Amino acid sequence: MMSDTASTALPEQSPLALVCGGGTLPFAVAKALIRRRRIVLFPIHGWADPGGVAEYRHHWVKFGQFGLFCRTARAEGCRDVTFIGSVIRPSPWQLRPDLKTLRLLPRIMRCFRGGDDHLLSGIASIFEEHGFRVVGVRDLAPQILMPEGLLTRRRPSNRDYADIQKGLSLLKAISAFDVGQATVVHAERVLAVEGAEGTDRMLERIALLRRSGHIKAGNRQGVLVKAAKDGQDLRLDLPSIGPQTVDAAARAGLAGIAVGADKTVLADPCALQRAADAHGLFVLGVGSTMLPQ
Amino acid sequence: MMSDTASTALPEQSPLALVCGGGTLPFAVAKALIRRRRIVLFPIHGWADPGGVAEYRHHWVKFGQFGLFCRTARAEGCRDVTFIGSVIRPSPWQLRPDLKTLRLLPRIMRCFRGGDDHLLSGIASIFEEHGFRVVGVRDLAPQILMPEGLLTRRRPSNRDYADIQKGLSLLKAISAFDVGQATVVHAERVLAVEGAEGTDRMLERIALLRRSGHIKAGNRQGVLVKAAKDGQDLRLDLPSIGPQTVDAAARAGLAGIAVGADKTVLADPCALQRAADAHGLFVLGVGSTMLPQ
Repeated sequence: MMSDTASTALPEQSPLALVCGGGTLPFAVAKALIRRRRIVLFPIHGWADPGGVAEYRHHWVKFGQFGLFCRTARAEGCRDVTFIGSVIRPSPWQLRPDLKTLRLLPRIMRCFRGGDDHLLSGIASIFEEHGFRVVGVRDLAPQILMPEGLLTRRRPSNRDYADIQKGLSLLKAISAFDVGQATVVHAERVLAVEGAEGTDRMLERIALLRRSGHIKAGNRQGVLVKAAKDGQDLRLDLPSIGPQTVDAAARAGLAGIAVGADKTVLADPCALQRAADAHGLFVLGVGSTMLPQ
Repeated sequence: MMSDTASTALPEQSPLALVCGGGTLPFAVAKALIRRRRIVLFPIHGWADPGGVAEYRHHWVKFGQFGLFCRTARAEGCRDVTFIGSVIRPSPWQLRPDLKTLRLLPRIMRCFRGGDDHLLSGIASIFEEHGFRVVGVRDLAPQILMPEGLLTRRRPSNRDYADIQKGLSLLKAISAFDVGQATVVHAERVLAVEGAEGTDRMLERIALLRRSGHIKAGNRQGVLVKAAKDGQDLRLDLPSIGPQTVDAAARAGLAGIAVGADKTVLADPCALQRAADAHGLFVLGVGSTMLPQ
């Protein structure tokens, strides 16, 4: 159902609208894409980094200015839209709705009841009903995804593999609940499950619990396991890791990080690898053969 | 299989050995029992509160002095044993093993791989093989359990009930993983899952995430849901709540607390009720009809 129609330019030739949240990920994606396609950034005011935005053609939007986005994106000839970068889950009260958003408000409010996937897929279908095609980073820039296999000098031990398997099974069991995408397991004991706090804060918690003696584990023990939820719309919110994840995992005393291969964005692969080797951590991309069925 | 035999006194007449961890719960249980049965406390050095212990007949033991416990408990004529109170999961390296424990060490070390239930049931079977009967607080002092229904003036709203249902379903889904016994849900979104940090620290996290703006929710919104794991040995580790849980839930801005009825220990029911009414929180005992099947 389309209530409006977008530019009739062929999708392949039309520039890509990149709606940018916070962090460096939007610029990693922009950099990977710019040689192959025209891109227009739509940085979200209050989240996106103005420094990184300046290098690219861009139009700032406020959270809730859907009408402005539609007009500007169409004027630019954009038909494909990608969402990228972190947006701390906004409150409905932070919306700066323009007229079009106001009309959609009851529906948007319903999207806010439930987890992140529910919110994102609700927002995505609104874009699609307005004639845009929502495209995932996964299809646009597969080179920024975590490959299957080992990135580091250190390799997981058999015990680490047991922890990884347990973590993947747990993430699978909770994926229907739209909670978090990460967990920490040590000696087959689940130490933490990611909630609203995000991966980095969960790792901080592990570091604190170790220092206070609540978690007893030798240094370089335990694994951070991170994977997309079952049935998650991979166009909208891929798990991501970067050098700061490695640093946080090292501070938490972990042996390494295991992430779903081809479904996790690597924010800065070279820096990540350097950091992991420096700390003596492993970073493993887990392929589908290892994922619990 | 019994490798030793205990006193031949009838279990009903024999005194009860109460192995005490930290907190006030051991003394609430002791107080509830002392009028009906002789009890001997075995406070664990470093965990149990010496002040509370002094009122009762007791013998201090160190974590790992299983031989000393067996000798002393038999000399006291104890055949039934109950474990009660918090023990921050000790490291195997904190064991102060006596000879008997040393012989059991390979087996004990295996108990430490995995979650709390696995550890506790392993320890319990060692006690049973030495001629003791492990009895649950639930059978000894059912009066200290949370009853079904509402304890407070405030009642849950329909939205609170939706959150409670979601929380109970999540706890059920993760119960096979032997993680935590509690979760926080708001607007049908799971905000936190308890891990090694325990309920009070999970609630602190919610308070922090609210203050930093990572969680957007009005005051007195969201529910702490706490329930025993599926298949959990209820003789060994019942979830518990007390006035401090209510205070922590209030600081986290929650609307209330829902716990599994008849499977949750109330540490100090009167103080808990007073605290909840003062903060305007509900406390609900959820019966089996509401539990997800």
